[in-house]
Amino acid sequence: MSNTNPARGMRDFLPEQVRRRDHVIGVIREVYEKYGFEPLETPAAENLSTLTNKYGEEGDQLMFKILERGEKIRKKIEEGKIERENDLADLALRYDLTVPLARVIANYRHELPRFFRRYQIQPVWRADRPARGRYREFYQCDVDAIGSRSVVVEIDICEAVCDILEELGFEDYEIRVNHRSVLFGLISASGIEKEKAGEAVVALDKLDKIGAEKVAEEMVGRGIDRESAEKLVGIVGETDSEDRLSSVAKIVANDGPASEGISNLKDLFAGTRAGRVKFDPSLARGLSYYTGVIMEAVLTDGDFSGSIGGGGRYDELIGMFGKEPIPAAGFSIGLERIILIMEERNMFPKELPNNSADVLVALWSMETLDKSMEVARIIRDGGIRAFLYPQPDKLAKQIKYADQIGARVICILGESEIETEKVTIKNLANAEQRAVSLDGLVSAIKELE
Amino acid sequence: MSNTNPARGMRDFLPEQVRRRDHVIGVIREVYEKYGFEPLETPAAENLSTLTNKYGEEGDQLMFKILERGEKIRKKIEEGKIERENDLADLALRYDLTVPLARVIANYRHELPRFFRRYQIQPVWRADRPARGRYREFYQCDVDAIGSRSVVVEIDICEAVCDILEELGFEDYEIRVNHRSVLFGLISASGIEKEKAGEAVVALDKLDKIGAEKVAEEMVGRGIDRESAEKLVGIVGETDSEDRLSSVAKIVANDGPASEGISNLKDLFAGTRAGRVKFDPSLARGLSYYTGVIMEAVLTDGDFSGSIGGGGRYDELIGMFGKEPIPAAGFSIGLERIILIMEERNMFPKELPNNSADVLVALWSMETLDKSMEVARIIRDGGIRAFLYPQPDKLAKQIKYADQIGARVICILGESEIETEKVTIKNLANAEQRAVSLDGLVSAIKELE
Repeated sequence: MSNTNPARGMRDFLPEQVRRRDHVIGVIREVYEKYGFEPLETPAAENLSTLTNKYGEEGDQLMFKILERGEKIRKKIEEGKIERENDLADLALRYDLTVPLARVIANYRHELPRFFRRYQIQPVWRADRPARGRYREFYQCDVDAIGSRSVVVEIDICEAVCDILEELGFEDYEIRVNHRSVLFGLISASGIEKEKAGEAVVALDKLDKIGAEKVAEEMVGRGIDRESAEKLVGIVGETDSEDRLSSVAKIVANDGPASEGISNLKDLFAGTRAGRVKFDPSLARGLSYYTGVIMEAVLTDGDFSGSIGGGGRYDELIGMFGKEPIPAAGFSIGLERIILIMEERNMFPKELPNNSADVLVALWSMETLDKSMEVARIIRDGGIRAFLYPQPDKLAKQIKYADQIGARVICILGESEIETEKVTIKNLANAEQRAVSLDGLVSAIKELE
Repeated sequence: MSNTNPARGMRDFLPEQVRRRDHVIGVIREVYEKYGFEPLETPAAENLSTLTNKYGEEGDQLMFKILERGEKIRKKIEEGKIERENDLADLALRYDLTVPLARVIANYRHELPRFFRRYQIQPVWRADRPARGRYREFYQCDVDAIGSRSVVVEIDICEAVCDILEELGFEDYEIRVNHRSVLFGLISASGIEKEKAGEAVVALDKLDKIGAEKVAEEMVGRGIDRESAEKLVGIVGETDSEDRLSSVAKIVANDGPASEGISNLKDLFAGTRAGRVKFDPSLARGLSYYTGVIMEAVLTDGDFSGSIGGGGRYDELIGMFGKEPIPAAGFSIGLERIILIMEERNMFPKELPNNSADVLVALWSMETLDKSMEVARIIRDGGIRAFLYPQPDKLAKQIKYADQIGARVICILGESEIETEKVTIKNLANAEQRAVSLDGLVSAIKELE
């Protein structure tokens, strides 16, 4: 028999999983819409030239490239003129949602509003080695606000993310916030020379995982003198201060960009909900393209804690296909991780269907099919999901099937019911049953459930 | 400047288009759910071996294949050991939704209910030559009911499709229905020998496009004698009979399978809505895998008429990955075509947002940002989409922007408003405005709109 598994690192989503994913996606969309973000969708495949050299060497390696077709590829194979992979491919699967956004912004700049805000929830593909929680096809869930350098944008994004996490039922979330200029101000104030600042950021990014001591050690390993490394780790690791923003502000008081960063952060905290959005001078966000505020959403309680999304301002990236830089800030929610944690924590709403239908309409005989159809129609018109049993099997078999698919009620239309123009409805959990007229069918089912 | 178009034959969907597509998809999902169909999603890419030889030679040509990665491909290129396309690829993009369904049925047969009913609305990819309405990435929208040979399944599918088309607002739709055995019965009754029956079906499938005369001509060209060809075209083309099913039943009365087909159709018409579901003995559905009832949804009025979906029973296909045949019936709604026609006919509901937000909250100064945020929050909590203008530009500029993004109301929070704890709300269409307190803000906006 042939292999019937999905391709390596990819997943089939059976009904219950689709419903759970759609629930989370639905909440995210609804909140983003309320904040004036609009939906965007781009093709799964992009021209290879659009994606090449955008993700570093590793990205180029992990990209799924699509073989050329027809005469072109046939000729190349025949002539043996193949020297490198890119001779064979003309398209590649989307690797993230940011490069497609940059392409869209460049391509439709005259149609889109100046402060275009979009969300995009679509799969991306990376040929990574699959592992627990790491897939080769996975959804990204990005929101970005284009065209303004104002911190109001970060405020709106931050508030929207808070709304989403609350709406999904997370009670232990925090948004940790820092500013790249403040971070570089602290690095400089610790005595680390400018050329080594990038190294310091890379090491600092591991603070959560390996702890202060090892971060300092790694800085030393990266050529930073021990005294400066320890000083920096000390400053960002400070946790008992009442007002960390003020104390950090004092340290970088003479540093222009850092002070501007402090002022940005002050505005941010004034505009976002207290208690949830917190200054964390140790937050580094490894990616080099951030230029201002950086943010990370984390869960703090229990086994399933850690980062569930991040973002910030990146004013240099979105203009990549044009001539001018375009300011932008964004956030990416870790959809796959959120779904995993919601499953582990049993957070999906009870109303979410985990059955094929709520009611099974039994079929007595092919002669009474029109009656069963009528009953099914009335129930469906009443907004209730009804499964019409397809063949006149024995009633016991139909009841068993109703149970298997998780229906809560079965409707029986036997000879006596048809004679008296009634339907027998039966609650499958407690065997309670009654005969009702078609008029009162929908409300009777709702009562019985 | 680089090419910023989407890849050839593929499309970006800007916000208004996404909302329209989601509206149609939402209606389809809601109806199918009510009929006990459940959502399924499969990966964009399948193992190449899963898809190869499933779609004929043309399908293998038009499939987007994915290049192998890493050492494997590097080695092959270095050694020059490439003889055919399939030496280079290990995956391919999904070409339809039926083969993935068959794979899922085989892979999870112990987890899925016996009469599994699923809908699947996902893109597929075909490297066809792009043309008006023909794309290389397009959505298919399939519903299939597995595991029963009963015509009840076709009835439920047919009724669900009617509900969907009505819910979407189509008033001129019809579901044309035939049965493969009836069709073959008529072909035989016309005197066409069994070996030529397939040729007759292929020719008959063109009846709508080229008319009766040319169909008969084509049959003759395919080796069918003129008398039989004209007889067949005459029978299926008959339109003035009161009860065509009875008259056709008489013609095939001595043909066992055809009479069984007639009985199937009688049950179908008893169970489906009259006036919409119509017997059409000329309906052929070219694809060879149908084994019973065949259906086609058509629009009948005006310029944008024609087929918008089709399906039927195909009892041999879904078992392709297992040892036993699995009965199945399904329907595929032509999503791309429906969206196109709804656009041409201007059928999208007026409530569907075609703007970025309903309200623009103006920003007076960075010092009053917290007030503007509070106003935005109240509006959003009231379920209204609010765009917070990101920077303290001149009010005229902010009003102009509100207009550009289609907001209907602007909220102004100037110094006098803040002093009196009021907000000025202004209808942008008629310039009507008033000052209201935060308490009454949401209801005042709803009144003003």
